[in-house]
Amino acid sequence: MTDSPLLKSSPPRPSGRRANQLRDVRITRHYTKHAEGSVLVEFGDTKVICTASIAERVPEFLRGREQGWLTAEYGMLPRATHTRSDREAARGKQTGRTQEIQRLIGRALRSVFDLNALGARTLHIDCDVIQADGGTRTASITGAFVAAHDAVGKLLASGKIAKSPVKDFVAAISVGIFEGAPVLDLDYDEDSQCDTDMNVVMTGAGGFVEVQGTAEGAPFTRDEMNELIALADSGIKALILKQKEALGIQGV
Amino acid sequence: MTDSPLLKSSPPRPSGRRANQLRDVRITRHYTKHAEGSVLVEFGDTKVICTASIAERVPEFLRGREQGWLTAEYGMLPRATHTRSDREAARGKQTGRTQEIQRLIGRALRSVFDLNALGARTLHIDCDVIQADGGTRTASITGAFVAAHDAVGKLLASGKIAKSPVKDFVAAISVGIFEGAPVLDLDYDEDSQCDTDMNVVMTGAGGFVEVQGTAEGAPFTRDEMNELIALADSGIKALILKQKEALGIQGV
Amino acid sequence: MTDSPLLKSSPPRPSGRRANQLRDVRITRHYTKHAEGSVLVEFGDTKVICTASIAERVPEFLRGREQGWLTAEYGMLPRATHTRSDREAARGKQTGRTQEIQRLIGRALRSVFDLNALGARTLHIDCDVIQADGGTRTASITGAFVAAHDAVGKLLASGKIAKSPVKDFVAAISVGIFEGAPVLDLDYDEDSQCDTDMNVVMTGAGGFVEVQGTAEGAPFTRDEMNELIALADSGIKALILKQKEALGIQGV
Amino acid sequence: MTDSPLLKSSPPRPSGRRANQLRDVRITRHYTKHAEGSVLVEFGDTKVICTASIAERVPEFLRGREQGWLTAEYGMLPRATHTRSDREAARGKQTGRTQEIQRLIGRALRSVFDLNALGARTLHIDCDVIQADGGTRTASITGAFVAAHDAVGKLLASGKIAKSPVKDFVAAISVGIFEGAPVLDLDYDEDSQCDTDMNVVMTGAGGFVEVQGTAEGAPFTRDEMNELIALADSGIKALILKQKEALGIQGV
Amino acid sequence: MTDSPLLKSSPPRPSGRRANQLRDVRITRHYTKHAEGSVLVEFGDTKVICTASIAERVPEFLRGREQGWLTAEYGMLPRATHTRSDREAARGKQTGRTQEIQRLIGRALRSVFDLNALGARTLHIDCDVIQADGGTRTASITGAFVAAHDAVGKLLASGKIAKSPVKDFVAAISVGIFEGAPVLDLDYDEDSQCDTDMNVVMTGAGGFVEVQGTAEGAPFTRDEMNELIALADSGIKALILKQKEALGIQGV
Amino acid sequence: MTDSPLLKSSPPRPSGRRANQLRDVRITRHYTKHAEGSVLVEFGDTKVICTASIAERVPEFLRGREQGWLTAEYGMLPRATHTRSDREAARGKQTGRTQEIQRLIGRALRSVFDLNALGARTLHIDCDVIQADGGTRTASITGAFVAAHDAVGKLLASGKIAKSPVKDFVAAISVGIFEGAPVLDLDYDEDSQCDTDMNVVMTGAGGFVEVQGTAEGAPFTRDEMNELIALADSGIKALILKQKEALGIQGV
Repeated sequence: MTDSPLLKSSPPRPSGRRANQLRDVRITRHYTKHAEGSVLVEFGDTKVICTASIAERVPEFLRGREQGWLTAEYGMLPRATHTRSDREAARGKQTGRTQEIQRLIGRALRSVFDLNALGARTLHIDCDVIQADGGTRTASITGAFVAAHDAVGKLLASGKIAKSPVKDFVAAISVGIFEGAPVLDLDYDEDSQCDTDMNVVMTGAGGFVEVQGTAEGAPFTRDEMNELIALADSGIKALILKQKEALGIQGV
Repeated sequence: MTDSPLLKSSPPRPSGRRANQLRDVRITRHYTKHAEGSVLVEFGDTKVICTASIAERVPEFLRGREQGWLTAEYGMLPRATHTRSDREAARGKQTGRTQEIQRLIGRALRSVFDLNALGARTLHIDCDVIQADGGTRTASITGAFVAAHDAVGKLLASGKIAKSPVKDFVAAISVGIFEGAPVLDLDYDEDSQCDTDMNVVMTGAGGFVEVQGTAEGAPFTRDEMNELIALADSGIKALILKQKEALGIQGV
Repeated sequence: MTDSPLLKSSPPRPSGRRANQLRDVRITRHYTKHAEGSVLVEFGDTKVICTASIAERVPEFLRGREQGWLTAEYGMLPRATHTRSDREAARGKQTGRTQEIQRLIGRALRSVFDLNALGARTLHIDCDVIQADGGTRTASITGAFVAAHDAVGKLLASGKIAKSPVKDFVAAISVGIFEGAPVLDLDYDEDSQCDTDMNVVMTGAGGFVEVQGTAEGAPFTRDEMNELIALADSGIKALILKQKEALGIQGV
Repeated sequence: MTDSPLLKSSPPRPSGRRANQLRDVRITRHYTKHAEGSVLVEFGDTKVICTASIAERVPEFLRGREQGWLTAEYGMLPRATHTRSDREAARGKQTGRTQEIQRLIGRALRSVFDLNALGARTLHIDCDVIQADGGTRTASITGAFVAAHDAVGKLLASGKIAKSPVKDFVAAISVGIFEGAPVLDLDYDEDSQCDTDMNVVMTGAGGFVEVQGTAEGAPFTRDEMNELIALADSGIKALILKQKEALGIQGV
Repeated sequence: MTDSPLLKSSPPRPSGRRANQLRDVRITRHYTKHAEGSVLVEFGDTKVICTASIAERVPEFLRGREQGWLTAEYGMLPRATHTRSDREAARGKQTGRTQEIQRLIGRALRSVFDLNALGARTLHIDCDVIQADGGTRTASITGAFVAAHDAVGKLLASGKIAKSPVKDFVAAISVGIFEGAPVLDLDYDEDSQCDTDMNVVMTGAGGFVEVQGTAEGAPFTRDEMNELIALADSGIKALILKQKEALGIQGV
Repeated sequence: MTDSPLLKSSPPRPSGRRANQLRDVRITRHYTKHAEGSVLVEFGDTKVICTASIAERVPEFLRGREQGWLTAEYGMLPRATHTRSDREAARGKQTGRTQEIQRLIGRALRSVFDLNALGARTLHIDCDVIQADGGTRTASITGAFVAAHDAVGKLLASGKIAKSPVKDFVAAISVGIFEGAPVLDLDYDEDSQCDTDMNVVMTGAGGFVEVQGTAEGAPFTRDEMNELIALADSGIKALILKQKEALGIQGV
């Protein structure tokens, strides 16, 4: 991607990255040994363990239909963050933020899954942040796809399903307006000071699955939104290449 | 507003509305008698009671700072919907959807509030849906702004604050792709079948506060997103006129 | 009804009502559109939405028996009251007061329902107070009966049941000793200062279903109790006429 | 007490008691050793441990006022009943019935307490049913008064208060219509089959503190209510004599 | 048992007991009337009601297997202790201590139960402390065994099972290092000051089921542990004799 | 360590280890970047992230005393185990097992901490299992000590405290009877089949802090207990060397 003039002139980022530069992204498969899919995904210092677990049953609302389900849960270790947060299990409930994120992860992955082809089973996605430095939800989606792909691989290998329910790749990235300029893949330093924060989920085919933009400070304009969307598009293309590389899949 | 060619050729909506046509919007102030601001907002058959309550204290995290807070809660009567939902108070917890919506309402209103100008007090927004027919969160934001404006009016009238903390208007609308065509202000019939559902929050000055688009079915394209945003923009302009009319405020 | 000498000489009520005078009572049917029965009941400034929802299943303890069930839930919007109360759904539990009231509403309605004639289904009553000014539980019972009657009408019309399970009318009113004198239908100003507060539930045939009298200040005497009961009896007769009028039912 | 003709002709009770006959009532003080007041109260086979505990603090809503508080909690051992009930602590919440009863106990005792004379402290009443055979709430109130009286005795003895905050005695009894006839002090066999069940709380001076009558089957009439009240009145007089005897108090 | 020289020279205990002396132990069967087994067990001033209830069903994880289950719950009345503790049912959850103890009681009893011989039913053990003076968990295990034995007796008498699932006796005692010397059966005064506290569960055949030793102050040595174990062994032998006596069983 | 004859003749372990052989133990400091102490501890395939976080406040019960506190929480990622467990945060409560373990970790670490020397601050220990293969609680204690030591190092380096509150080392290991023979450091295959399972916590000076032995199958004898204790003692000595090595501390 050629940098646009606007991006070239943008102010320096705390990390020294260019406006359209992702952090180092690493996807480590088979990270833990029990789950059908297990991935450590790292976006710079943000580190998330994503597992995909197969259960041979479906939730109540699908009972009796020949269809599967995919659901996601999200958590953070109490000291994944700068200061220690209360442990949700000890408090006895998940925060609104946690629920919002896990709903987003579930929707994102379901958008590329043919739940009929999955059969009457559930794919449980767990994303647990062990170190947070901004962008935990986008790293979670990006890593969870790979974990889910691996779990599907086990189903195919064992002959439980004949055809993959995975219809396309899916990945996510954050973009934002930092000191007046659009930047890709916000880290914590940027996220905590930016004016606008947008999370974008896209498929391998380039379709949008989710766009969630929030003005933390001043409202944003349609032009800014367009620029952010373009940045996100380029970032997600790069992430999907990383996913393919991790999975050993070639070609577009 | 002149309809674009694309909108003219769009398929018929269940309600018979044009693609860019809002439902009947009614904003009734002083709907209940105890709250400092109390509004019944109706977007067609969607009816929400929005109250704004002033409390002369701030949450723990603001203790000792000369700043106020605005927070929102959302609920639905169990039979606001087609089939009865469990009462959240009886289940002992709010759903993820409820928490997501109330966080959105809070962020939307805070975007147009100068919390320093509010002083060390809290504005509690309560949005309770008494009848649901799609778009409850956008109706809630639109009505809650008027309730909050009325509560602020009481603070000004009583001399507790000298200057209004309200920096701009804010309203929200949903847009979506229904049977392949972009439409404004989805009702339940449309919402339950649409491919893409987007909630947009904008200020009176035309800035974006939130854009939340989700592909329920097929992913959406950048062109579709642009069309949806344009539709939302026109709808929100109309809603802000309704708010001004309800508040007896003239001029753009 | 002719006023007794005692009632004539009683001290003025804050509202200017006579001791045996109800507030304006309004019963609006079909208030919301989804529920099988939906009523807005108003006792003066006390306003409660009462819905009756039919579910084609029964609770666990009735499984396998050819009998139905009727159960009630009660809630108040957070700002239905003078000062905002915490939202029970957010606190994660219903107060003892809420549970006491919803148990009372359920018992009151079941007393005039033939649960065998209802068949193996559940009638869910929801009473949600949108504005409180005293007497919310008695308004709830009075309105809920009409909503339940409408829901039963739907069951009859659809042929699901052949015979109405409604055996009689039921309504409720509060009475109390205010400044030494018995008064009917306490509003908030009276309720918050009265010595004795009694809620009475009676059937159309004049039988007592519930009598709950509490001395808030000085204990009450048997004579006072008798006077209160007589007042309640007259009030409930009037309420049942209102119910019949709302339902378009003539005769006693 | 001379039996009235009506009572003489009433049908036999399962226990062989006369219609106006209490079960054997035993009040054992100093039942456990830590509490400031500790009583085992037995109404026949119903056995409740009532303790009164003094805490040198008041609830939030009384902070800064020179007034005390009295509050009550109620529980049942899981196998106090015919079949085992779930343990409320394990279920994570108290039932509506439990909350209703503990609110009643608290109101009953507060009606004879001068909370100003108690000083800025709280009297915690705990009533725990170790064996249930009907009438647990009335036994609780009757026993809790004695425990509270003992706790007050400790405060007086230690000089923490100079004057007793106890204004009068208070006790409670159930009455009901069993096989068509009014009976006093229902045991489980009667309670589970009776048409009307009424709990009455009265002071030593003969004033009514609470009357809670419920038609379990057919509604009851005003005459029946009068008879029940008269029966309760006689029973409570006898209970208060028992309390005085237990406390070693003579006179009326 | 002959006292060892070491025990003879140990410092005086607050209770005046010898180092190897149990408190007065009393086991009262048939303490309450509803449960299949009901025991009041007293270790000095520690008093626990232990009931065993038979339910003709098994937990989910045993569904479809021809095996029974035994589970235990533990509670304390709020004022069983020196100062009042919060009621767990009111707080809405059991403490970690409560859960730890009830898990221990369940494991201890299961160790001597042949769950296959019990058939597809559950034995619910409830241990409720009505007065606490140290050693509530060991008293609970010791008493619960007798209650469970009685419940099994009912199953045998009714012919529901042909052979007792009870394989051996089981009892428990605490030991500790108090002022430098090992002592048996700690009461509250000792427990609150001791350096090491150990709970031991043993069978009638002399096998160890649980050993739980904790250094509250200074760590303990292997020699001290050996002495404590020996003391516990002697105490449990005495407790099992008490159990046999209570059950009217002779011989070893 | 020379193997005893008994150990030599013991049956083969699933892992091929000798009876007295630990798994590979690895202690990685500075594993995550935010916590004052952060350790990944691995006992073979069991992997636990242990963090120590300093908070400049103390719990309510220590308010106003010049003393610190150390507390621990424990969790497992849902798919740390062979089959996925429910997420405790989603279920809304911690299991009894979790509470038991976190109480144990807290007691173990407090046994070697001088809480007065810590000053009025709290050390929060979090142990989160990312992969479980038996022995998670003993790995947690062993790793948490190192994390706590690092956090103390930060306090010393910053001058907040002048003297280390760490009085000694502490580590933990499990031992058990597997196929009749005592073995050290049970992995999951052994743990799920062993007869007796014992967790032992010891200090660097060789004192016992906790001994928790449970007969899962047949009761164990005093001789077996002695052998297990000896095995544990040797294992803990080796673990403490590992801790010292990780911390770069020389000498015994």
